[in-house]
Amino acid sequence: MLNICRPTLLIDEIKVRKNIARMKKRAEILGCEFRPHFKTHQSGTIGEWFKAVGIEKITCSSIEMANYFARHGWDDITIAFPYNRLEIDLINDLNDHVSLNLLIESRSSLDHLESNLRNPAGYFIKIDVGNHRTGLEFHQADLISSLMKGRRKCKYRGLLLHAGNTYGARSTNEVQAIHDLSVEGLNAILDKTGKSYVSYGDTPSCSRAERFDVIDEIRPGNFVFYDMMQVQIGSCTIDDVAAALACPIVAKHESRQELVVYGGAVHLSKDQLIVDGQSFFGQPVELSENGWIAMEKCRVKAISQEHGIISCTEDVFNRYNEGDLIGILPVHSCLTSNLSLNQMTLTGKVLSTIHNEK
Amino acid sequence: MLNICRPTLLIDEIKVRKNIARMKKRAEILGCEFRPHFKTHQSGTIGEWFKAVGIEKITCSSIEMANYFARHGWDDITIAFPYNRLEIDLINDLNDHVSLNLLIESRSSLDHLESNLRNPAGYFIKIDVGNHRTGLEFHQADLISSLMKGRRKCKYRGLLLHAGNTYGARSTNEVQAIHDLSVEGLNAILDKTGKSYVSYGDTPSCSRAERFDVIDEIRPGNFVFYDMMQVQIGSCTIDDVAAALACPIVAKHESRQELVVYGGAVHLSKDQLIVDGQSFFGQPVELSENGWIAMEKCRVKAISQEHGIISCTEDVFNRYNEGDLIGILPVHSCLTSNLSLNQMTLTGKVLSTIHNEK
Repeated sequence: MLNICRPTLLIDEIKVRKNIARMKKRAEILGCEFRPHFKTHQSGTIGEWFKAVGIEKITCSSIEMANYFARHGWDDITIAFPYNRLEIDLINDLNDHVSLNLLIESRSSLDHLESNLRNPAGYFIKIDVGNHRTGLEFHQADLISSLMKGRRKCKYRGLLLHAGNTYGARSTNEVQAIHDLSVEGLNAILDKTGKSYVSYGDTPSCSRAERFDVIDEIRPGNFVFYDMMQVQIGSCTIDDVAAALACPIVAKHESRQELVVYGGAVHLSKDQLIVDGQSFFGQPVELSENGWIAMEKCRVKAISQEHGIISCTEDVFNRYNEGDLIGILPVHSCLTSNLSLNQMTLTGKVLSTIHNEK
Repeated sequence: MLNICRPTLLIDEIKVRKNIARMKKRAEILGCEFRPHFKTHQSGTIGEWFKAVGIEKITCSSIEMANYFARHGWDDITIAFPYNRLEIDLINDLNDHVSLNLLIESRSSLDHLESNLRNPAGYFIKIDVGNHRTGLEFHQADLISSLMKGRRKCKYRGLLLHAGNTYGARSTNEVQAIHDLSVEGLNAILDKTGKSYVSYGDTPSCSRAERFDVIDEIRPGNFVFYDMMQVQIGSCTIDDVAAALACPIVAKHESRQELVVYGGAVHLSKDQLIVDGQSFFGQPVELSENGWIAMEKCRVKAISQEHGIISCTEDVFNRYNEGDLIGILPVHSCLTSNLSLNQMTLTGKVLSTIHNEK
């Protein structure tokens, strides 16, 4: 089978290309531009699959990541993370050779950026849609309005929203309800400030919600791989999940019907779901040369630094032995992928390996 | 202040050297050999601080890590992770130039190892002390006894235990109670199998428990940095915590008295504690050139991929601004350190930087 001896992230190229094509189609149907977030895959190779379908502008979450993709030929990048003034020198260097947009949510940050930019750059104003992580709130329309006035070097591009609160949803209806609140708040701002370009994020809304008429651009990222959290939210089906960690089985415990795998928190990260009242750190799958099939009634019940513990059915327990490989669909593919940056193996139609991309 | 512009793990060398000296003294008092686990720091430089106090043998959790430390001159290594037969070629290569001990918990693994080893290697039998992650159980004395019979190439070294269940303890008394159960189970095995060399793990027990008379060797790892989980367990005080993530502040939210920092799950990992019924992802500290001081009544209340949200007092909120650095003591330093392998900065008495050690 696969020539793997340690935890290795497998990427199903066919599923990834389908996920990209589906989201691109969604953007077209919604009448939005598509500026995918590349923080999930962080891969130059996978970036090429976006280029192949005509994508020309992207989103990143750090200067470091933006520099990486700039080296891979991307020249229109929004950094969807609040402007970090301590990185102004790196920003100025990056801004010399790409069309860059930054994120602002206070007058003090905009002032600092204006005073320290070497050449003009774009900026979005971050709006909090109710996620309460970052951004100005709906009721701060006066401040938002005043920040919209571009400066000599800081060029206003629009409002940027990220409905991360959809991650608490557990159905398409709940996603739509959160999205409706976002759009209502957004409309309230636009009523006061006048029309503006609007960039909107989060994979659940972009996958499932309707009502994007005031939204000009979508920036989902997770959809490229999806994961078990997105399955639980209802953003995708389990067949859309395009990343699996291949793990060697190193021990079996018959009394508990558990398999111990080499594959833990340093490979999967530690995001968990509660499913039927039980901790769930990943979905075991049966691996083959061409992909994987989910194993029903099996789950990763615990992980520590290097160990994963799979609680499984009697059938699975008896079929698998020490030295076999088993796959795990991650709970949160962004974090899992980040832990395997230099070690992704492509499966599906095209079998090849990405090594030390950075 | 510190010349840092992005999330950077600071290591207080004075505290680390104190933690090493204290645990070495504990081992002497307990009458045990000391084979520290290097999975927490994974640093050749910090390894030298162990060498400086006479440590000659170590524990690792993967072949990859063992190879790294072998390249740094360590030649007596126990890999405290179940034997992964898929890595036998790597094991044979490593075993050619270091004294290597592996971990066995089934006859099938021992048979496989015996058939595939190129040169003799040592092995320990893993015993489950009630943690139910890996290992043979106390009642399996007959199997344990039969596995103790060394083979031609597989040389029996002893029993290996790891009381990871102490991580659920929240006081020294609870740690001692778990330790007492481990020692009772261990004695029950030794009564049946006869005396054996015993290697014992976990930072809480090794930091606080008494009664190590049947134990010959301790293998704690986390103590080198400690962390907020160990503070909550009672293994150390907050002053012993020797690693802090320095994070730029990128936004302030007055209505919620929250600071947003550049520093998230890809820097801290996502282990969390529940303190007073609230999620706790790290302890904010005030940074200076010479170390840090904990900020009372402040906590990291949430993290996402790159963001951390610090809930703080009015005083702290007013004193800190966008562009300032703030420190975070991690919940689980092993995972935080693993995410910063190439980017640790030493603070304390000696200020220097570790770059791209690997």
